[in-house]
Amino acid sequence: MDAARAEALLDFLALADRLKTVERRGLVPLPDGTHRRETSAEHCWNLALLALLLHREVAAEIDLGHALSLIAVHDLVEVEAGDTYAYDPAGRATQAAREEAAADIVFGALPADLGARLRAMWEEFEAGETAEARFAMACDRMQGFLQNVLSEGRAWREHGVTRADTRPRMAPAEAVDPVFAALIKRLYDRAAGGMLPE
Amino acid sequence: MDAARAEALLDFLALADRLKTVERRGLVPLPDGTHRRETSAEHCWNLALLALLLHREVAAEIDLGHALSLIAVHDLVEVEAGDTYAYDPAGRATQAAREEAAADIVFGALPADLGARLRAMWEEFEAGETAEARFAMACDRMQGFLQNVLSEGRAWREHGVTRADTRPRMAPAEAVDPVFAALIKRLYDRAAGGMLPE
Repeated sequence: MDAARAEALLDFLALADRLKTVERRGLVPLPDGTHRRETSAEHCWNLALLALLLHREVAAEIDLGHALSLIAVHDLVEVEAGDTYAYDPAGRATQAAREEAAADIVFGALPADLGARLRAMWEEFEAGETAEARFAMACDRMQGFLQNVLSEGRAWREHGVTRADTRPRMAPAEAVDPVFAALIKRLYDRAAGGMLPE
Repeated sequence: MDAARAEALLDFLALADRLKTVERRGLVPLPDGTHRRETSAEHCWNLALLALLLHREVAAEIDLGHALSLIAVHDLVEVEAGDTYAYDPAGRATQAAREEAAADIVFGALPADLGARLRAMWEEFEAGETAEARFAMACDRMQGFLQNVLSEGRAWREHGVTRADTRPRMAPAEAVDPVFAALIKRLYDRAAGGMLPE
């Protein structure tokens, strides 16, 4: 590895480190009974674990290395564009343009071959057309819902999210495979009784 | 997926979520100029990104899915055993026994087939004998060093760590491949000038 490539990689890693400072709306329960927002970096690890547990449970043939690669890069643009809450219509309206601009900065910071490879992974995740992209999307949506259940619906209530609001977000994940449908149904059951208003 | 398996998976994910509450000694620089400790979950995502960037740069043939799987599970025992600082001899002395006991709890919480598979991954990482385990170890050690460089050596100075202290920890990573040796040399160069006392 030549000097310019090594230095560019280290500079990119400094930029990517900022994913640990991007806060999501979902809350992590702490040992003392309080909660704090989950970081996007933590969310990405959680998706990787979920993918590792589920990739052999679904009907589609999943290339695990490819799925885990999509997961590792799928939120990198947030170091420039920030996290956009699933239930924030105004943020959603500008999200695509903000994230495209962010992708130019983030993937442009890598050596050209690596930048092109990682950008293609991000675009594949966003397009949601391959088996691995659909699988990763289902993990992503299920994890966001799970995080709310683990924190007893606090973020849902804070933002006035209802069960009906969550349906259009969860339905595509349920459609990926019956395993996701079954797990998400159980999460809705766990959320019954006040976590998620009707 | 039957009901018992689905419920066991969801319960395991609640246990695994605690990796977001395990704090490492390494510090994350925040936008306001302050720092906070990195969580083990964030560290695991960071390793995944590093592995994705480097797996084609090294001489050994790396099965990326396998390497990323080892990385996703390598610190799971910390939800029971806590993080053990690399430069804490007393903690290191009891680490293996504490982590073995933790592994019984953590991997025992999964359905038997998945528990055995993930435990085998953790043991493979710990044994460090396969190409993927050695590659993941090198990413792990390089990331810990990088985190210190990104936070200007604060954690090193806080714990009185010297350059000589870091050598036995970094040498095995440098031995994995010349690419790691080259990147780690550059990190030592970036740490020169006061971050890491001689």
